[in-house]
Amino acid sequence: MELGLIIVGNEILSGSVVDTNTSFLARELFARGARLLEVAVIPDDVEIIAARVWEFSSRFDLVVTTGGIGPTHDDVTYEGVARAFGRGLGLRPELVAIGTGKKWWNEAAAAKLCRVPEGAVLLPGGLIPWPPVMVENVVILPGIPSLVEGHMPALAALLPSGRFFVRTVRCWGREVDLADAAAEVAAAFRGVEVGSYPILARDGVPGHVLVKFTGLEEALVVHATERFLAGLLPSMPRDLIP
Amino acid sequence: MELGLIIVGNEILSGSVVDTNTSFLARELFARGARLLEVAVIPDDVEIIAARVWEFSSRFDLVVTTGGIGPTHDDVTYEGVARAFGRGLGLRPELVAIGTGKKWWNEAAAAKLCRVPEGAVLLPGGLIPWPPVMVENVVILPGIPSLVEGHMPALAALLPSGRFFVRTVRCWGREVDLADAAAEVAAAFRGVEVGSYPILARDGVPGHVLVKFTGLEEALVVHATERFLAGLLPSMPRDLIP
Repeated sequence: MELGLIIVGNEILSGSVVDTNTSFLARELFARGARLLEVAVIPDDVEIIAARVWEFSSRFDLVVTTGGIGPTHDDVTYEGVARAFGRGLGLRPELVAIGTGKKWWNEAAAAKLCRVPEGAVLLPGGLIPWPPVMVENVVILPGIPSLVEGHMPALAALLPSGRFFVRTVRCWGREVDLADAAAEVAAAFRGVEVGSYPILARDGVPGHVLVKFTGLEEALVVHATERFLAGLLPSMPRDLIP
Repeated sequence: MELGLIIVGNEILSGSVVDTNTSFLARELFARGARLLEVAVIPDDVEIIAARVWEFSSRFDLVVTTGGIGPTHDDVTYEGVARAFGRGLGLRPELVAIGTGKKWWNEAAAAKLCRVPEGAVLLPGGLIPWPPVMVENVVILPGIPSLVEGHMPALAALLPSGRFFVRTVRCWGREVDLADAAAEVAAAFRGVEVGSYPILARDGVPGHVLVKFTGLEEALVVHATERFLAGLLPSMPRDLIP
């Protein structure tokens, strides 16, 4: 399954808030064998949200958005997603029922928070009362990290039950001296992604290179790693990271 | 000046590396009055890089890419940017001269690292010997955070000398109770961006809302903030954050 992630928030683009939802969701998706193919960080702008949601929705199996859900003027994600699919916004009595009586609730919140894209599905909300809202293949989450984490079970229910297998080889040498061996394996094993990540010398640890082999089939990943180790220059010190 | 940022790297999409270049560059750009309008995190894939670079190049004044520069098979950013503009790759003797004799250098590195899009401009490299490469309005940086930081002076030289002014009001109450006042100011002041950020109760600090007013004209930002304070419910406790 291939996913796209859309992070909505001026505060991230201005650097006043550091986005942690991307790394959290990237790890969670990877742990389930789902492939995150692109992340877009975009402003709280209806037209921009609509355009990117439309594009991602057609390119990926599933799209997740975070941010832009709330009672203020800059919370426009529901409206942006609705526009992406040419839908209107409609008041959902189930949402009014969820919010009524909560400490953060008033009539204005009801009018804004409970108007979601027409035909949307309300997913089970996990630990949080306010449910994720799903329109076509787009799941709309809030932006506050603890709420994103709380919604992870609802999101996980939409994902396949798979996992990626990873082998990592640490090479104590120059990246240029392993490039050929890595390229050969990358070309020979279609189902295995080969990544090369140089780590600069720091805190007394000499510079080295992490070479990662990732795929959905364990035997293939193991085989690719062995091929790489055999293809490395004999003079290159290396170890497998457990 | 409006910018787009493209972060190239499978390792970020799989969650094995946390991207810190986005927050670093977002803060640096903001501090200079440059507006970061979108960030894309994409895989090490020539076609995807080419498509996103082409789109961003036409939408923004300046585009910055990080990652995908190096001697291995998964370093394809130069190739992706070249393809975005229908250019070929050409060997640059200046780059060969820079690399020759360095510890990390060999012939394979020369063949890959020194082949950059035809007609590219090599920017002054700041603290690092390897220069940022600029093609049309796209500046190509490496992905390693310390190298991105080292290239900041070269990037800053392309930016206007401006700054954003920010006022932040902390409201000790519910976001729903300040939504009207914030919306009114957002509608009345075109040159001021009004953002509302709820902070959940934590570590003994009660929940509150940060309302930020941001713009390039200080007088306008001050005026908008005063209007918001006057429009707030008198019962809402508030303070200005210095």
